[in-house]
This record gives sequence, structure tokens and C-alpha cells, in this order.
Amino acid sequence: MPNGFRLKGLVPATFTPMKEDGQIDLTKIPAIVDRLQGHGAGGLFVCGTTGEGASLSMAERMLTLEAHVGAADRRLPVIAHVAHTSLVEARELAAHAQRAGAAAISALPPFYFKPATLEQLVASMAEIASAAPELPFYYYHIPGFTGVSLDLVEFLRQAADRIPNLAGVKYTAPTLYEFQSCAAVLDGRFDLVFGVDEMLLAGLATGAQGAVGSTYNLAPRLYQAVMTHALAGNLAEARRLQLLSAHMVEAVKRYRPLPALKAMMAFIGHDCGPTRLPLQAMSATEKLALHRELDDIGFLEWMA
Amino acid sequence: MPNGFRLKGLVPATFTPMKEDGQIDLTKIPAIVDRLQGHGAGGLFVCGTTGEGASLSMAERMLTLEAHVGAADRRLPVIAHVAHTSLVEARELAAHAQRAGAAAISALPPFYFKPATLEQLVASMAEIASAAPELPFYYYHIPGFTGVSLDLVEFLRQAADRIPNLAGVKYTAPTLYEFQSCAAVLDGRFDLVFGVDEMLLAGLATGAQGAVGSTYNLAPRLYQAVMTHALAGNLAEARRLQLLSAHMVEAVKRYRPLPALKAMMAFIGHDCGPTRLPLQAMSATEKLALHRELDDIGFLEWMA
Amino acid sequence: MPNGFRLKGLVPATFTPMKEDGQIDLTKIPAIVDRLQGHGAGGLFVCGTTGEGASLSMAERMLTLEAHVGAADRRLPVIAHVAHTSLVEARELAAHAQRAGAAAISALPPFYFKPATLEQLVASMAEIASAAPELPFYYYHIPGFTGVSLDLVEFLRQAADRIPNLAGVKYTAPTLYEFQSCAAVLDGRFDLVFGVDEMLLAGLATGAQGAVGSTYNLAPRLYQAVMTHALAGNLAEARRLQLLSAHMVEAVKRYRPLPALKAMMAFIGHDCGPTRLPLQAMSATEKLALHRELDDIGFLEWMA
Amino acid sequence: MPNGFRLKGLVPATFTPMKEDGQIDLTKIPAIVDRLQGHGAGGLFVCGTTGEGASLSMAERMLTLEAHVGAADRRLPVIAHVAHTSLVEARELAAHAQRAGAAAISALPPFYFKPATLEQLVASMAEIASAAPELPFYYYHIPGFTGVSLDLVEFLRQAADRIPNLAGVKYTAPTLYEFQSCAAVLDGRFDLVFGVDEMLLAGLATGAQGAVGSTYNLAPRLYQAVMTHALAGNLAEARRLQLLSAHMVEAVKRYRPLPALKAMMAFIGHDCGPTRLPLQAMSATEKLALHRELDDIGFLEWMA
Repeated sequence: MPNGFRLKGLVPATFTPMKEDGQIDLTKIPAIVDRLQGHGAGGLFVCGTTGEGASLSMAERMLTLEAHVGAADRRLPVIAHVAHTSLVEARELAAHAQRAGAAAISALPPFYFKPATLEQLVASMAEIASAAPELPFYYYHIPGFTGVSLDLVEFLRQAADRIPNLAGVKYTAPTLYEFQSCAAVLDGRFDLVFGVDEMLLAGLATGAQGAVGSTYNLAPRLYQAVMTHALAGNLAEARRLQLLSAHMVEAVKRYRPLPALKAMMAFIGHDCGPTRLPLQAMSATEKLALHRELDDIGFLEWMA
Repeated sequence: MPNGFRLKGLVPATFTPMKEDGQIDLTKIPAIVDRLQGHGAGGLFVCGTTGEGASLSMAERMLTLEAHVGAADRRLPVIAHVAHTSLVEARELAAHAQRAGAAAISALPPFYFKPATLEQLVASMAEIASAAPELPFYYYHIPGFTGVSLDLVEFLRQAADRIPNLAGVKYTAPTLYEFQSCAAVLDGRFDLVFGVDEMLLAGLATGAQGAVGSTYNLAPRLYQAVMTHALAGNLAEARRLQLLSAHMVEAVKRYRPLPALKAMMAFIGHDCGPTRLPLQAMSATEKLALHRELDDIGFLEWMA
Repeated sequence: MPNGFRLKGLVPATFTPMKEDGQIDLTKIPAIVDRLQGHGAGGLFVCGTTGEGASLSMAERMLTLEAHVGAADRRLPVIAHVAHTSLVEARELAAHAQRAGAAAISALPPFYFKPATLEQLVASMAEIASAAPELPFYYYHIPGFTGVSLDLVEFLRQAADRIPNLAGVKYTAPTLYEFQSCAAVLDGRFDLVFGVDEMLLAGLATGAQGAVGSTYNLAPRLYQAVMTHALAGNLAEARRLQLLSAHMVEAVKRYRPLPALKAMMAFIGHDCGPTRLPLQAMSATEKLALHRELDDIGFLEWMA
Repeated sequence: MPNGFRLKGLVPATFTPMKEDGQIDLTKIPAIVDRLQGHGAGGLFVCGTTGEGASLSMAERMLTLEAHVGAADRRLPVIAHVAHTSLVEARELAAHAQRAGAAAISALPPFYFKPATLEQLVASMAEIASAAPELPFYYYHIPGFTGVSLDLVEFLRQAADRIPNLAGVKYTAPTLYEFQSCAAVLDGRFDLVFGVDEMLLAGLATGAQGAVGSTYNLAPRLYQAVMTHALAGNLAEARRLQLLSAHMVEAVKRYRPLPALKAMMAFIGHDCGPTRLPLQAMSATEKLALHRELDDIGFLEWMA
């Protein structure tokens, strides 16, 4: 019975390393995982948005997960993102994750056909979660990508009885009042993990204890410092550091967020290659300009 | 060289028959195809939105296509919808379609990550189309589902050189001025097929020669009558018949469009079973009420 | 009792002439109205979207209406657009329109706070319509601007008893199946006027008898030819002419639709000045380029 | 030269009191203002979203502002919201606010026609701000209502030279990373005031020193306690209290937010009457049920 499972601290949503021709490159994963583990990562979130899960084939998703589980070697929990527009495929990914040794699974809702009612959402998620019954299940709320923004508080209340392994929510939206309400449902039964890196301080103030995000790959020391200062009630210093994250987002969005973030992995010696179409990878010129901007705003030094 | 390929007349977007437990049921396909062929269908569009393609596994999509190609037995062209959020999987579906004997392929753009520029859209579509180089390729424009609504006229101009087998567009949007502009690009080089059944008359008036849609499964005689009257310039009678389609849509949307339409297949003796989650299938009570409404508005008699 | 009022033919939505400094310039109105009357306009729609009604002060809206009513001099009906985010102001505009001699009023729904239910929509529209009880009232459906897209068929059914002077709908959306359903409500009691110029042919085919739009100011002969050919069942020729309208829209949207259309009034000798902020008026260079494009596509000759 | 003006603490966005027939009722304002002043309000934001400014006539907006300025009697600053779809009217409201003794003005962007570029936004806002040159001007960012969400950091940089009296931003959106970036523009030159009550703690953690909102009318002691604990670094207690606000929002949105909040004024002895159409006022039954819910969650006691 997986309830009670909690993610703590910073959980990088890992990039899926690729070769220049777009093939996945599993050989890069062990070194990346070692680095993240050395930085005290609270887990690894694999094949999610950052990992371009939606752009990978079924086989690639399974191989990528296995490579992370192998590299983690029980040193830190690996959460497998298993969503798919087809619940049949999602169930297969879920079952594979359980077999492969993932510590938990997570799924966003179907997003071609979209659940229009809570009943449809609960039923859809129950179907996925039941394919990995021994693993905690995290609902992945990311309305900016899925267009699904049903009442989450009510979802948790209704799903509590229908999805026995429902452990919590990966909450990737800025609406922290809803985050806080969800965390309070059924006396705090569910684990609410915050997914907006550039608002980490706000999330911590609102009660987040775990956070999943792409930039925790890049500047783990920075965000850990934010966390330390926030927990000590030293908000001024936490804010000063969090501002670097906001500035980084300003820079990154001048290019294209995910391609830019993936390109930044090369800046720290872990080249993860280009993003796949439909995302347009960064050009060499763009990378150079971005590097300079990150240096100017003082973010680069935290990536060391 | 597949250019010059044109779809003519009414092309039903087929439902994927399922058993009560949600498994696909290929045994139903031959009778459905025979009926549609008997009604003069101009082709079959398989595993698209109507066919719940996004809710099927890769294997199910391939089997469903093969069953339709087999049942069609060269009597009418089968167009395979091969889109996927992963271009790797989409290419595999495209290559399979070519091997399996499809007459053409079609794909909507990636819709988790979405192309944000024409360059990203052209490059993404080129990648899919090149995996079935011997087949005509139809871009599937359906912004209500994908959220992608880049300038289609410009897309066609730019794609003309980059996608050698680009044959046309399955245009599922009500904006007929754009439809007409697209049809005029490069002296009418591309085949624009209209995808809004309940606006068929408007589409025909604007120049559509082919139309793909779900309700052409259900009431082919009605829409053929619309077509005949429209082509003869008898707009008043065409309009009277087209109004039945508009009334049907009013009824259907009081329930849930796709589940209702799929349920209606049973009304004509070709039970296609329930829709899959996240779409909620019709209950027996709902089916009964819908049947009565369709009778009241005079649509049911056209389904005979 | 104003029911039974019908708008016929092409009804230009007039531009509000302005001086270079942005002040309204009523002196230009008589010549414009004479020209439109000479071209057989079916009425004038004043202070709507084309007329930048939302950018005018209350006083300016009243003056602009009076100038049009005066210039029309009973030769053709003037419809006053009286919507406002404040129903108090909308009622004042409606009452003024009745006093000033308008033939009908029209209003879109409040759009800062928006009606979220049919009851709120009906009640809001009833409040406006009752301030001009002797005039026919047209609900102005333009969801692309207002964000309000409640079920129109149901609206008409419910409003029929609640708004005694409800005459019809100015329907500015491409979804012609809904247009057709609305026209059929209560045995065709309501007058459905179509508002998408670049889809006029499709609208006519679907049954529109009147059409309101901005480009009927610019090329009335073109659209009348479309109308004549369509009514004669000569769809091929109607289509050929309608394509010019679609090409014009392609050109205009490369700039900014309303500023471009307003600038085009100068091309026919009726300079209406710039658009007001927040719309950015066309520069001289842009106007020159647009003029050339309109010439190239063959639209300009129809503006003579 | 108004730069350097800062709003501090909790600034209630006041409701506009109305009689049962919907007429404004200025007689209620003095007692409300006295109460808020007694609770240490940092100012009053008048005729904004909470005050149904968009539903009031020009005359009503001016009278409502004057009543608040009179009641405040220099004890606390009054900020006048002067936005209008017509910049002509907005300028008139701005000039009136300066004459009437407001301490600052604020405006959201035009929202029928919307600025599509930063240049259009800056030019539009400059036009309003220049009509009250002696007052600080706050740009009112509320994309959920206006649909305008241009890059705010860049807006502030460009507007700094073009709008001499630009003092800051009333920021009503949950995206606190952008809030933080804006607060850092030009070495913190601008005053960023936070407008999401149910996220006050997150806003404070991110650096907000002032906050404008509707519920500061209702439970000022609660939010002041949140503020006190947050500033003291006592995040756990601040969070416990902030959760009451989140629960209140859950209750309120089960009805309709603004009508419910306005109805709640009667619960504290300051009946502000119904909301105007298109907002549907609360029924007596709904009010009773809401009162009970607010009691159950422990919010009501903080309204005393």
C-alpha cells in the first residue's frame, strides 16, 4: 500500500540525452545521475515534459527509464512518467515501470480527447494507476500543456477511494492557493509536489516540501540555497537568489524554453544534444548568446 | 509521384469498432465497408478523430488499418491517419501504411509540444511524409483539437518544395475563406478536402469537391442529396436537407458528440460498441433519448 | 411591435471618419452615405466593431449616429450599435437611438464581466432592448471579440418571450451550421444576418438574406455580383469573385485588419483618417504596399 | 513628479454599494471607509474589478470616486481606476480623478480592441496617464479579464521614458516570477503591488510590500496576521492562516466569485446590495448556504 510515499527536496525532471541525429543516447545518463545524486537530488522524474516523453517512442521511453533506474541504483527514487493519449499504451508503460524498478509513476490526463468531467478524469487515471498497483501514483497537473483544468480539490476527494495508490499531485501551475487547498484535502493525505522552478520560494512559503523541475538539473546549488534560507525564515536572501531564477527564465524565453534549457546541459559538461521536432533545437549562435546572457545575470556561476 | 491525387465525394471517417470491454473488434469492419462502398463512398479515412486513433495503441492502429484495407479490397481508397505526438512513432505508422496498401496518409501536427512557427510545422510534417514517400500526404488541419493554427496558405507555399508527396489538406475548421485561399495556392495544386459535415453545403458552395467526416457513415444518402442539389444549383432544397444535419448536431452535442455518433452506428445495425476513455460512452438511457430526438427531427429516416 | 423587421442585402458597417489628430470628423459622412446608398446598400450599421464604437465616447457615439441618420434621410435604415460594458450606458445609447431616428438597435453582450449562463445573457440583453422598445433589437454575436459563446439556439428560444422586440442576430462567426439552426428557430421567426464578408457566398448558400460587414463599404459591386450569381445558382462564377475577397483578407491581415480596411477608404476617395489606439494606424509606407497588393490580386478594380 | 510613490500594506479594492434596484448608494461609503481605516488599510482602490467599474456609467464612476475621497478625508490614499475601452473616456476619468483629490490612478488596457504589441500598449497607457500628470499611474495587469498578456518586464523598460508618472503595476496574476522580475526592473524603480489575495503569503515571500484585493474588505485582521507572521519569518503560522483564504475561495467559487464576495459585506453589517448584470446576484438561499460554509471553515470569525 503505497500511501504515505512522499517526495522530498529537489527532484530534477531529467532531459533525455540525444545524439546530433536525434537518436537517444543512454550512455550519457550515468554521469548525469551521479552528478544529481551528489547534489542531493530527492529523486528523478523521467520522460516527463522536460524529458520530451511525448516525442519518444514506447520503446525509447522504456529504455530511457531503465537506464535511469540502473544508474540510480537505489540511491534515489525514480518516478516514471507514463502518460499517453492512449490509455492502453499508458497502462503498458505503467506496468513496465513497476517491473523495471521505478519508485513511483505519474501521468497527465489524455490530451487529444480530454476528460470533460471529473468522472472522466478519475476513471481515466484509475485505469492507468491500476496497471502499476504496487507503485505510488502522482497525478500530473499541467494545464498549460494539457488544457485540462478541472477542480483538483474535488478530484482528490473523489479519487481517494477510486485510486488506491494515489499518492499525490505533481502540480505544475502558478495557482498556489489551489496547491495549498489540495495539500489540505483529507487532513493532508496527499503529497503535493510543486513544479514551477521559477516560483520555488513562493511554493515553499505555501508549504511545498518537494519540487520537480527542469532547472534543478542545471543549478541545484542555487535552489538548495533558496530552500535553506526559506526554511530558516530568511526570506530576503532566499528572494535574492530566487530572482536569479526569474532572470534566467526571462533569458530562456527570449529563445525557446525547452530547447534552451536542454542546450544549457552542455554548458555544465553534460551535453544532452538537441531537442526533437516539433521543438526547434538551438543554433550554435543562439547557444553562444544565451551563455553570455546567463553569465551577465549571474546565473552561470550557480551552474558550476 | 503522388501529386495530382484527389479525393472526390463523401469520404467517411470510420469508427473503430470495439467490444463492450473496449477491445477493438475487427470482425465488424467488412460489413461496414461494404455498406459504405454500396453508398458510393469516395474513400475511407481510418484511425482519425472519429476512429479514436489517439486512444488506440500502435498495434491496434496497424490492425485497424489492415482490416479496412482488406475489406476495401481496392474498391475504394483507404487513407491512413498516422499522426502521433512522437514523430518516431508517426513515421513507423506511415511506413506501415505504405506497406499495408493504404492509398494515402494524413497527419495532424504534434499536439503536446506544438509547432510554434511555420518552419517547425513544415519540418515536422516533412519528417512524417518522407516515411511513406510513395503515398500522397494530406496535412490534417483541426485547430479545435490541436491548438495549432498557423497560416495555412503560407504553409502550403513553403511545404510545396519541401514535401514532395504533399497532396492536400483535410480541412476541419469552419473558416471557409481560408479553405478557399488554400485551394487556390499554386494554381490549385493542392487537394482541399472539407471536414465539417454540418457545413457541407457551405463547403460545396465554396468549392469543395471532397469531404471527410464522421456522419457520412450514418446518413450518406442525405449528404449525397445535399451534394446533388448543390451541384445542380438547387440551393433551396440543398439547404432544407442540410438543416437536418444542423439539427442532428444540436441533438448530439446535448450529449457528447463522438460517443453519441458512435452509438448511432448501432441504430443502423452496425454496433461499433462504446468509445474509450477519456470519452464517456453513452448509457442505454441516453441512447434511447437520442434515438427519439433523431426521429423527431427527421434525421433517423435518412440513416436507413 | 417590431417583429418581422428584416435586413436585406448588403449592409455596410460604417467606419467612423476621423481627422489626423483622432477627433471624429462628421463632415465626411454624407458623401459616404450617398455613395453607399447609390450602390444599393440595405442599411447602415453604425458604431459597431468597424466603426470603433468601443473606442468612442458616449457623446461621440451619439453624434456619429445622428450624422448617419441625417445623411441617410430615410433612404435606407440605420442600425445603431449600442453595447457597452455598462448596461446603464447601453440603455442610454439605446434610448438615444430611438429618439434619433434609428431603424433598429443592436448590442453585443457585456465583455469585461461576461454572462456565464443563458439566464444572465437573456437578462442583460432584455435590459438593453427595453430601453428602445419601439425598435427591433439584434443580438450581436461576435465571440472572437467578446469571448461569449453560449448556445445561441437556446438563447433565441428563451429570449423570444423575454425580449418582445428581439428581431434577430447579427452573426459574426464562421460556424454556419449554428447560423442555419438559429434561422430555423420558431419557424424562422428571427432575422439572421451574416457578418463574415469573406465567407459571404457560404453564408448565402446557407440561407443568409442580409449581410453586415466592413468590406461592403469598399467593394459593394463585387459582393453584389457574388450575391447575384449565387442566387442564380451560378456558383462557379460566385466562387471566382468570392476568392478575391479571401485574397484581400490575406493581404489585410499581413498588416492589421481594421487599420488596413479603414486606410482603404482613402483609396476610393473617402479618407476616413486613422484608427484610434489601441489599434495602430497604418503608416504611409504600409498604405502604399497594401495598395499595390490589392492591385496585384485584382481587388482594387472592384473598389472603383 | 510622482515617482517614488509606494503603496504599503493591504489596500482594499472597494465594492460599489448599490440599492436593491441596482442604483448606486453612496450613503454606505463613509462607514465602510471608517471601518477599513480603523483596520489600518494602506489605501482604497476604487471602481476597479471589485467595484464593478466596468458596469458603472461615467457619472456613477465619478460620484463613487468622490464619495470615497470625501470619506477618506486624507486619512488614507484613494486610487482611482479609470480604464475604459475608449481612451477618450479614460482620459476624462483620469482628469476627474486628479481634480477630485485621488492620490493615484490606475488603468487596465483597452479590452475590446486589445493592444497587440508593446508599442500599442505603451502608447495607449501613455495617453491615459498624461491626462492626470500630477498623479502616480499604476498599470493594472489582469490578463484573466483583459486577455492582454504582453511581456511586462519589457513594458516597464519601454514605458519608463514614455510615461513620466508611471509608478508601478497592480499585478493581478499568479505568475510570481514575472512579478519579481518586474519589481527588479531599473533597480527597483517601480512599485509592484500584488493582487491575488488567496496567494498573499506567496506574494509576500516573493517581495510584495503592498497588496490590493477584494477580500481585504472582508477579513482584514486575517490578512494582517498573515503579513505579520510572514515578515517575522514565521511561515508555518502564516500558512495556517492563508489556508483559510484558500478555503474561502473554494466556497465562493462554488457560487459566483464577485456576487458572493459582495454578498459577504452584509455579513459584517455593511450591506452593499446586489451586483449588477451581467453578474447574477446571490439569492437569499445561496447567501444562507454560503454563510454556513464560511462558518464551517473558520473564515467567518475573521470577518468580525
